[in-house]
Amino acid sequence: MITHISPTGSMNLLSQLEVERLKKTASSGDLYQLYRNCTLAVLNSGSHTDNSKELLDKYQDFDVNVLRRERGIKLELTNPPADAFVDGEIIKGIQEHLSSVLRDIVYVNMHVAESQRLNLTNSIHITNLVFSILRNAGTLIPGVVPNMVVCWGGHSINPTEYQYTREVGNELGLREMNICTGCGPGAMEGPMKGAAIGHAKQRYANARYIGLTEPSIIAAEPPNPIVNELIIMPDIEKRLEAFVRMAHGIIIFPGGPGTAEELLYILGIMMHPDNASQPLPIVLTGPKESEDYFRSLDEFIKDTLGEDARKHYQIIIDDPAQAARVMSQKMPEVRQYRKEQGDAYSFNWSLKITPEFQLPFIPTHESMADLDLHLEQAPESLAANLRKAFSGIVAGNVKAEGIREIEEFGPFIIDGLPELMRKMDKLLKDFVAQDRMKLPGGHAYAPCYKIST
Amino acid sequence: MITHISPTGSMNLLSQLEVERLKKTASSGDLYQLYRNCTLAVLNSGSHTDNSKELLDKYQDFDVNVLRRERGIKLELTNPPADAFVDGEIIKGIQEHLSSVLRDIVYVNMHVAESQRLNLTNSIHITNLVFSILRNAGTLIPGVVPNMVVCWGGHSINPTEYQYTREVGNELGLREMNICTGCGPGAMEGPMKGAAIGHAKQRYANARYIGLTEPSIIAAEPPNPIVNELIIMPDIEKRLEAFVRMAHGIIIFPGGPGTAEELLYILGIMMHPDNASQPLPIVLTGPKESEDYFRSLDEFIKDTLGEDARKHYQIIIDDPAQAARVMSQKMPEVRQYRKEQGDAYSFNWSLKITPEFQLPFIPTHESMADLDLHLEQAPESLAANLRKAFSGIVAGNVKAEGIREIEEFGPFIIDGLPELMRKMDKLLKDFVAQDRMKLPGGHAYAPCYKIST
Amino acid sequence: MITHISPTGSMNLLSQLEVERLKKTASSGDLYQLYRNCTLAVLNSGSHTDNSKELLDKYQDFDVNVLRRERGIKLELTNPPADAFVDGEIIKGIQEHLSSVLRDIVYVNMHVAESQRLNLTNSIHITNLVFSILRNAGTLIPGVVPNMVVCWGGHSINPTEYQYTREVGNELGLREMNICTGCGPGAMEGPMKGAAIGHAKQRYANARYIGLTEPSIIAAEPPNPIVNELIIMPDIEKRLEAFVRMAHGIIIFPGGPGTAEELLYILGIMMHPDNASQPLPIVLTGPKESEDYFRSLDEFIKDTLGEDARKHYQIIIDDPAQAARVMSQKMPEVRQYRKEQGDAYSFNWSLKITPEFQLPFIPTHESMADLDLHLEQAPESLAANLRKAFSGIVAGNVKAEGIREIEEFGPFIIDGLPELMRKMDKLLKDFVAQDRMKLPGGHAYAPCYKIST
Amino acid sequence: MITHISPTGSMNLLSQLEVERLKKTASSGDLYQLYRNCTLAVLNSGSHTDNSKELLDKYQDFDVNVLRRERGIKLELTNPPADAFVDGEIIKGIQEHLSSVLRDIVYVNMHVAESQRLNLTNSIHITNLVFSILRNAGTLIPGVVPNMVVCWGGHSINPTEYQYTREVGNELGLREMNICTGCGPGAMEGPMKGAAIGHAKQRYANARYIGLTEPSIIAAEPPNPIVNELIIMPDIEKRLEAFVRMAHGIIIFPGGPGTAEELLYILGIMMHPDNASQPLPIVLTGPKESEDYFRSLDEFIKDTLGEDARKHYQIIIDDPAQAARVMSQKMPEVRQYRKEQGDAYSFNWSLKITPEFQLPFIPTHESMADLDLHLEQAPESLAANLRKAFSGIVAGNVKAEGIREIEEFGPFIIDGLPELMRKMDKLLKDFVAQDRMKLPGGHAYAPCYKIST
Repeated sequence: MITHISPTGSMNLLSQLEVERLKKTASSGDLYQLYRNCTLAVLNSGSHTDNSKELLDKYQDFDVNVLRRERGIKLELTNPPADAFVDGEIIKGIQEHLSSVLRDIVYVNMHVAESQRLNLTNSIHITNLVFSILRNAGTLIPGVVPNMVVCWGGHSINPTEYQYTREVGNELGLREMNICTGCGPGAMEGPMKGAAIGHAKQRYANARYIGLTEPSIIAAEPPNPIVNELIIMPDIEKRLEAFVRMAHGIIIFPGGPGTAEELLYILGIMMHPDNASQPLPIVLTGPKESEDYFRSLDEFIKDTLGEDARKHYQIIIDDPAQAARVMSQKMPEVRQYRKEQGDAYSFNWSLKITPEFQLPFIPTHESMADLDLHLEQAPESLAANLRKAFSGIVAGNVKAEGIREIEEFGPFIIDGLPELMRKMDKLLKDFVAQDRMKLPGGHAYAPCYKIST
Repeated sequence: MITHISPTGSMNLLSQLEVERLKKTASSGDLYQLYRNCTLAVLNSGSHTDNSKELLDKYQDFDVNVLRRERGIKLELTNPPADAFVDGEIIKGIQEHLSSVLRDIVYVNMHVAESQRLNLTNSIHITNLVFSILRNAGTLIPGVVPNMVVCWGGHSINPTEYQYTREVGNELGLREMNICTGCGPGAMEGPMKGAAIGHAKQRYANARYIGLTEPSIIAAEPPNPIVNELIIMPDIEKRLEAFVRMAHGIIIFPGGPGTAEELLYILGIMMHPDNASQPLPIVLTGPKESEDYFRSLDEFIKDTLGEDARKHYQIIIDDPAQAARVMSQKMPEVRQYRKEQGDAYSFNWSLKITPEFQLPFIPTHESMADLDLHLEQAPESLAANLRKAFSGIVAGNVKAEGIREIEEFGPFIIDGLPELMRKMDKLLKDFVAQDRMKLPGGHAYAPCYKIST
Repeated sequence: MITHISPTGSMNLLSQLEVERLKKTASSGDLYQLYRNCTLAVLNSGSHTDNSKELLDKYQDFDVNVLRRERGIKLELTNPPADAFVDGEIIKGIQEHLSSVLRDIVYVNMHVAESQRLNLTNSIHITNLVFSILRNAGTLIPGVVPNMVVCWGGHSINPTEYQYTREVGNELGLREMNICTGCGPGAMEGPMKGAAIGHAKQRYANARYIGLTEPSIIAAEPPNPIVNELIIMPDIEKRLEAFVRMAHGIIIFPGGPGTAEELLYILGIMMHPDNASQPLPIVLTGPKESEDYFRSLDEFIKDTLGEDARKHYQIIIDDPAQAARVMSQKMPEVRQYRKEQGDAYSFNWSLKITPEFQLPFIPTHESMADLDLHLEQAPESLAANLRKAFSGIVAGNVKAEGIREIEEFGPFIIDGLPELMRKMDKLLKDFVAQDRMKLPGGHAYAPCYKIST
Repeated sequence: MITHISPTGSMNLLSQLEVERLKKTASSGDLYQLYRNCTLAVLNSGSHTDNSKELLDKYQDFDVNVLRRERGIKLELTNPPADAFVDGEIIKGIQEHLSSVLRDIVYVNMHVAESQRLNLTNSIHITNLVFSILRNAGTLIPGVVPNMVVCWGGHSINPTEYQYTREVGNELGLREMNICTGCGPGAMEGPMKGAAIGHAKQRYANARYIGLTEPSIIAAEPPNPIVNELIIMPDIEKRLEAFVRMAHGIIIFPGGPGTAEELLYILGIMMHPDNASQPLPIVLTGPKESEDYFRSLDEFIKDTLGEDARKHYQIIIDDPAQAARVMSQKMPEVRQYRKEQGDAYSFNWSLKITPEFQLPFIPTHESMADLDLHLEQAPESLAANLRKAFSGIVAGNVKAEGIREIEEFGPFIIDGLPELMRKMDKLLKDFVAQDRMKLPGGHAYAPCYKIST
């Protein structure tokens, strides 16, 4: 089956050269592969799998071809997933996402990759790249007062937790806050659906449901069609940086290793002395049933990063309105701080992020084994290293590349100070017990790591 | 507590005379009472009761006062229900509804009541009045091609049925159909919430969630805040006429006597010989669990109005996409018909509605007892009379006036051909058994009628 | 030639009854005639004549017929003036004006004429009617801060004066002021064209060019297509009331008896003791060449209404920026006053207008002769009477009805205190000498009045 | 005097690196100078000079500084020209132009200059650059059907000609055509002002007044504030290419050497065999008084490029409606051709432009003397060379760089086939006689060239 789709927005204008470079036959065939896979992921929005490899294997005969026409670009899709269509017509939310994929792939790979004098081992240049990608995507809207809440949490949560994330979303929507998540199912979808209802009640015209993803995760966590702004960052570290520079507040719902990664990332940053005066509300929240979960996460943080780390967040149990109210009441302070610093509302330039949080970490058996996991380091460094460990586990669980590594060489070995390893092991075992590692499927979870305790 | 609210839209401009007539102290105090009660109902959107009297009793100290200010009208509310507010700010959807109440009360009572040479016993004049009210409310948008689906069904339905109405709504939304309901909870809310998600997926910018109500029902079935166009028709018959003249298709979900009233109303009209060629898709649909319900309703229709009545509707069980698809596929035919007739897309002038469906029926013990319920009459007349019987039962169940009547004089007596009465009795007993008469509260349902079998 | 036009806006929805009453064949044929003539006038926007009778005589075979269609109303035009079309397509500005005519004719004659309990000899009721017509036309936009400048002046001015009115318009536009005029050529067109350029420079999105007219003048002074809001008031007095209740400031350019009428009208009102604290900037302005004109007008005012009258206006010669600056600098005061009074920004309810300025004056030989023109009366009464005298002269000059009167019975006789009559005679002779009585055509101006000095 | 201005649109978001590079103190100070001069030119919109050097000399103490603030970028202006402000507020049209300058300077110099693998001696790459700049500016709107008329003509034309350009503009506006010009005064302003009125009459919501300029001409021909899209191309050749790739039709009004340059440019392209089937209406038009002008230009074309060249344009005298009608009637053909070619409506990729029309020509005494001006070459080559000759004369007349060259070394010497030189000399002498070389100022025109006949 072949279908033709018109992209929306600015990207239905491509130059001859750009179109050439996206062709299957272009000399740099890698780009086609990247573009094709992201496109396929987006077309798969409706599906519920969290295994990138499965998805890619299932649609091997899928193909995308960019054509130039008098009204702009057309995308020729061969054998696209049927769920992207209603009575033969593509769902417009998905059509927009196709355009976003095109926009970001073209921009990152043709306009910034080799240009703009950027040195991507330089911290300032990395931040400028993150900024440029977001600006090019139209994500940074000047003048809008702070109201962006980043929601993190597991893609595999239970129905009670899911319903709770919707309620928090509804309360955020009623307070005219916008939502940014990692754009998969579970805790990344619930707050958006809830906020959509809250926004509708408020007739809120500027509702934003931003999905931030990256090529290696998009297939495992395809954007829900509620997402009305999709951005594909080049890698996981730039995605994380985008999250925190756009956030005016962060809510963390229950989740697995990905959520732990995110929490460690933001704590590692907030604990940097340069960020001591940054106002950024961070709330960990869930239904009554999730209380134990948060208590043990809290314990882990205290035991690893120290008591000081805890003052950067608060835990709110079973009170969606309160979670939203904390965000909304903190906004004037965020606004005031940006004003005083002469910093943009839409992009937190003044937040200090050190290179250890910026430079890409590629999880391999070697790099995982080499992680520096002991307590004799600054807490922000330990946070950075722990963050990488969890990042590797996520890769081994759901990313195509990681799954292949594990299939070939067996689980990652994670080694470090025994005391620390025991705590980590416990936390991970809890995640397994609570079904937080993968979407509930047929078989038991086989860990992709081995803690060397 | 006193709060000041600005109405939105055209109605924050009132003349001095109009403001005078809305005052508590105006000579025609009735108008104030009507206005105050509708306002209170709208402010009660969040609540879940279906008893008008309860609501009115609970907020006896509520008061509304219209003030003129430099930027337009202000509404001064004394002791409004707290649920209409979020952190002290009124929810904008409710604010809009307050404006709609003001608009329709002013228009109906000050601009058409005694003017426009209308004779409200004349069928043409009644239809013109219905048209004028809808036009004044901005409901009739010229040029828009047919896509308005009227959804009927019970305010008291079970969770499986409710979820089903959401799914149908989602499928309608994905097909860019709009929704019009009676604007209470249950089957009047579900399709709207579902459509809101479907519309969001389609980035559908012209989403309409129309709530059609009237003063005697609004307190029992206050509009959900998703409703983005609220119209208060002067009485139940004009509300029904508004439904069918605006409808391009009708979906009927499970419900109680109100739903039966609506089904009889539309069948009585569609069976009129003048309407033989009117294309108006009517679908009865529900989840698997509701199949029996529809079969017995179908039986009742066949036994009373005859086999012919059944060709006007189809029953679809457990297939939300199909129910939506039937609507969407019928639209070109509706469009074609209007074009051929030179009839408006937005208002079905050419549908014949006879006075027995237009003239107000006021259910009293006397009028209920006098209903002409036998089989020796044209099916459309029988439909009209059965419609009135069910209308009376609805009043006795949930309307303040009706409840008072029943409290004072005991249940309505409904008399007629025994064979017919037995069928009716059975249907009503089914409704009771299925909990369709009232929202589930503390006590068992005490019927407001007695069938004289 | 027959053309079909779709009206724009709300009025392409008419009820069956409304369409009936507009038919040529309707029992009240007068309404058709009124509607047809206003429609013809609007279609004649491009033309340059100021003689209503000429226009009506020229297009005797013009016909308009309102049809109902599936997308709304269609206007069937028979033999419309060619200048309303470009390559066979109607100019959209004119199409909008056709809709405005329909809207106001229907509203005034079908919705308020016999209803709303209005007593049109009662001052409050007249004001309410003026308000209702403007509200129905969408002219009153709540919340907009004061920025409406009413411009008065002659339809027959010389090129220097015309250019000056454009420059004042440009300066008003640059200050984001909106314009309301009587919507003919000359001083009623210049400020709009100028403001259109000024607004364009400011990217001003809410540009309003309001044309206020009435049936007896519209044919002589058809709206320029720049007018983007056209309102047809029922008569000259309601049009004048609409002007002053909408005005946040008034600029008076050189003109003839119509302009004198307007100046006397506003001075008569501003001199009423109840209006002592009303802030309403009034500026008389023109190019250097018009200085004498303003001096003699100023003299006439001083001699008739007294020195006190002069404090209500200022004369600015040859300084367009200053004229605009006076308006713009006065706006905060206007705003403050309305706020303190709780009065609407969009409609000046608090301005006292006495019945002598409200009740229609129909100029006949009798009524003109009966005017009470002497100095032994309150200045506001004298202003009212003088206003009527000039109103009669305008009618005799350009209105179809007036021209017929004069043709049949000879010039109006205007009688009064000799001293006063001499002054009036002088002023009128100046108007004639300056070519301000009529558009320059072939023949010399034959006065339609005789001053009985 | 120091003022702070907020840019509008996307460019009030600059990254830290971008802001750094725009500073006066940045290592590449040239960029600051370029940016500062373009900014100054734009602020000078109101003025009437055509001498870049004069302008730059007059405002030597002008300075611009880009600051980052919480709501985006602020421009700090030191000693800006007063005419850009009204009562202390910058005119919004000029504010927008300031943003356009910033946008294009940043884009061209920071985003494409050294990147995108562009080789700017390669024809395809040049075209891609032109496309990228226009796309980045938001100029290319996909899906819009052809309606862009490029208007060329002199900045120094007489009042009759100016009025004529307005009338043509009005007729184009009435036909809902958009306007693109070189954005100075005279024939570059008139069509826009006229179209603004025509568009207003048609309530045309998508009115576009595009000004295409480049750094060396912007100071001599600053954009009129009517221009609502301003683009600063990097040099004259890319500006010319942008004109013809965006044009759906071209109207040429009377003008001087700049206009001759443009006519030769487009004829040289249209005469290329590859463009034989390109439908592109070209109309030379002016009032009756300009007939001789066009006849002699026509003669010059015939004598130099040959009879064949004449079939690419038509001359229309004194008929504004007809000039506009030719454009509007040709649009369906343009549309059809693009469709058949699969070419964009917004950018004419399929038009063949050879490198001799693309590579920058820098007029120096040497390059001017070296021009290959004889008849023994393909007409398109001769057109290219003649184009360069006229381009040099424009530079010597109005561009800062060119004026300096002439001041230092005396007039350019233009040499070539005597027969050809005589014709060229005659044409140029006519331009001088008709005052087309410079804006009428104090002194007689001193030619900046010497024809070696």
